[in-house]
Amino acid sequence: MINIAVLGYGTVGSGVVEVLNVNGDSISKRCGHEINVKYILDLRDFPGDPVQEKIVHDYNIIVNDPEVGIIVEVMGGVEPAYTFVKEAILKGKSVCTSNKELVAKYGAKLLELSKQKNVNFLFEASVGGGIPIIRPLNQSLTADEIEEITGILNGTTNYILTKMSNEGSDFSTVLKEAQSKGYAERNPEADIEGYDACRKIAILSSLAFGMQVDFEDIYTEGITKITETDIKYAKAMGASIKLLGTSRKERDHVYAMVAPMLIKPSHPLYSVNGVFNGIFVRGNVIGDVMFYGSGAGKLPTASAVVADVVDAAKHIGTNIMTIWSSKKLKLSDMKKAQHKFFIRVAGNTGKIKEQAALLFGQVEEVKAPGIENEYAFITMRMSEETYQEKAADMGSIISMIRVMF
Amino acid sequence: MINIAVLGYGTVGSGVVEVLNVNGDSISKRCGHEINVKYILDLRDFPGDPVQEKIVHDYNIIVNDPEVGIIVEVMGGVEPAYTFVKEAILKGKSVCTSNKELVAKYGAKLLELSKQKNVNFLFEASVGGGIPIIRPLNQSLTADEIEEITGILNGTTNYILTKMSNEGSDFSTVLKEAQSKGYAERNPEADIEGYDACRKIAILSSLAFGMQVDFEDIYTEGITKITETDIKYAKAMGASIKLLGTSRKERDHVYAMVAPMLIKPSHPLYSVNGVFNGIFVRGNVIGDVMFYGSGAGKLPTASAVVADVVDAAKHIGTNIMTIWSSKKLKLSDMKKAQHKFFIRVAGNTGKIKEQAALLFGQVEEVKAPGIENEYAFITMRMSEETYQEKAADMGSIISMIRVMF
Repeated sequence: MINIAVLGYGTVGSGVVEVLNVNGDSISKRCGHEINVKYILDLRDFPGDPVQEKIVHDYNIIVNDPEVGIIVEVMGGVEPAYTFVKEAILKGKSVCTSNKELVAKYGAKLLELSKQKNVNFLFEASVGGGIPIIRPLNQSLTADEIEEITGILNGTTNYILTKMSNEGSDFSTVLKEAQSKGYAERNPEADIEGYDACRKIAILSSLAFGMQVDFEDIYTEGITKITETDIKYAKAMGASIKLLGTSRKERDHVYAMVAPMLIKPSHPLYSVNGVFNGIFVRGNVIGDVMFYGSGAGKLPTASAVVADVVDAAKHIGTNIMTIWSSKKLKLSDMKKAQHKFFIRVAGNTGKIKEQAALLFGQVEEVKAPGIENEYAFITMRMSEETYQEKAADMGSIISMIRVMF
Repeated sequence: MINIAVLGYGTVGSGVVEVLNVNGDSISKRCGHEINVKYILDLRDFPGDPVQEKIVHDYNIIVNDPEVGIIVEVMGGVEPAYTFVKEAILKGKSVCTSNKELVAKYGAKLLELSKQKNVNFLFEASVGGGIPIIRPLNQSLTADEIEEITGILNGTTNYILTKMSNEGSDFSTVLKEAQSKGYAERNPEADIEGYDACRKIAILSSLAFGMQVDFEDIYTEGITKITETDIKYAKAMGASIKLLGTSRKERDHVYAMVAPMLIKPSHPLYSVNGVFNGIFVRGNVIGDVMFYGSGAGKLPTASAVVADVVDAAKHIGTNIMTIWSSKKLKLSDMKKAQHKFFIRVAGNTGKIKEQAALLFGQVEEVKAPGIENEYAFITMRMSEETYQEKAADMGSIISMIRVMF
């Protein structure tokens, strides 16, 4: 039997207990040990809940109990999670976490520490909820050099964009609806401004390239500026607007960003709709692969956490090597990143078209039914820097969305 | 340094050597050892090829060399592969294979044997080419009870169906074209009759349910009867015809089959087109996940084989537990499996419609532009057995395709 402790009895924490109850038999069989939840750390009490006797309020009881072999950290936030996890590892306990803030900030350090202590620090649930992506990156794509990793990494924004596209509704209406359905938080900033996706692409990039990618270095743009009109144009192009976290290696340069982008049906992420997430990986020998599933939710996320517990239980006494050095990967200057740009300019006169052609060279005009008094076009591939210069000269730009086709 | 031997210097074998050459540095870093190809077994010589000095014709040289720690079996076919692999494991060597025939037939036995000998038998490349699916099933979905696993498991047939759909061409024209492009074999039977997909779904089902599923027990139907007209109807329904290998657990019953089926855009496999493969898994806690990528091809397949080599190298002296008992899983009688059925009947008279309604109860009529003199409809959900009875009474059925929506 292996004793574990769960830090935080919120959505994911109670999901972990539920999964262990529902699938206990097959889980024991797969990991060769019965998993017993010995403690649950929470500030609250849960009178009447079957777990009430396991609730403790003092972390010291858990971390000092030599019977506890694995700690599940599902509290979220950097502190006190980091302090707790560090102490656990120093005491020779493995840790499984769903906490993307913690992993993005201290993943490399905690992996190093767990290597020294010969335990494991696992975080499958920190990206893509239940979708297996961390383990496949670490253990399945080991024959490849990763060239690109691009994901729909946030279910809330994908739900909003899908709904805007399906119903032609505007952003704020759909956001309100998403909030009332519980798909968006009351304070939705972390989702809609792209901060959540940013932490996740930082984790994926660090694993893909084996070095520390700091999320603060990643250019991040949310979806708050996307309008019904942008979506009408996307449809006219046979394309879709998705909030993508992407990082790409070109020779020795790694570019990373989070922004809404236009993609076409030929891209595997095009059909990832609603609250689902999808993560696309391009390797130099495997080619294109994509992983799809529920990016959030109590049970899918708990499924990933418990799978990590099984892995930790199977590897007691053995560190599973993960290549993520704490050496910082210097991302290339975003200004040099190359894209095509979809641009809408106010006014639809011959003069404006002339000016666009003069500035941007060959452009592809885009028309959408019912939209007048503006001129929209896709540029050739150019750097962000060049785009910025030309856009400043062009003036009166209504909106710009990067193009992934 | 770890010495390996490659059995078979065909497409995949030469791909393995190429991947080890191209990505050698990062592969060594990830597995903590340099991988050296010491021998290549082939009947042929390869004068002028950089590997010519590694070529041997006698397997005994390889299996009796204690320096060889890992054997890559990429010859295909059951014999002599089985004998070779068994001997290797008995000599304490780990084996990585892409050979689906071998794995479908002897997977459970070879896993048992490798457990006894404390080595590993790995076969990521046997299903879905490069797509990570075996390792995720074994190591990531360990918190779940798998309820369904359904895949587009054969790139040749998916290419043919996609092409038929995109171009409105008939089966034999597209098959010929696929053959000329090298996407289909000169003797395409294993692909187009579904035998290849059948072995793959047998392997996936065995892993998902932890017991031996014999491919001979799986009802298998290929795509040779699919016509341009069927595809016109599919389009009229907003659906797509895909050759699916599927196995589903309902209470204590497991149903498995390979057949062309109709799916709608809401299904994650709908947008898996061309030579790509996709594998959809439904777990009782994780919900729906899907894995997408190149299902075949030299480098993607070699990528999966080499990733197995890395895993084997990291686990020298430790058996990675895989739950696949050689105890046979008795599949439930296909006759009891329930579907909706899309049926085309010759003639479009009131009498025929009346008869259909009388036999099948409530049906949903389907019309496709330009198709006359036949009546097409989708039935309610019913067992295969019930369908067979009613179909016999109905008579003059032109075609039937199972419906997955």
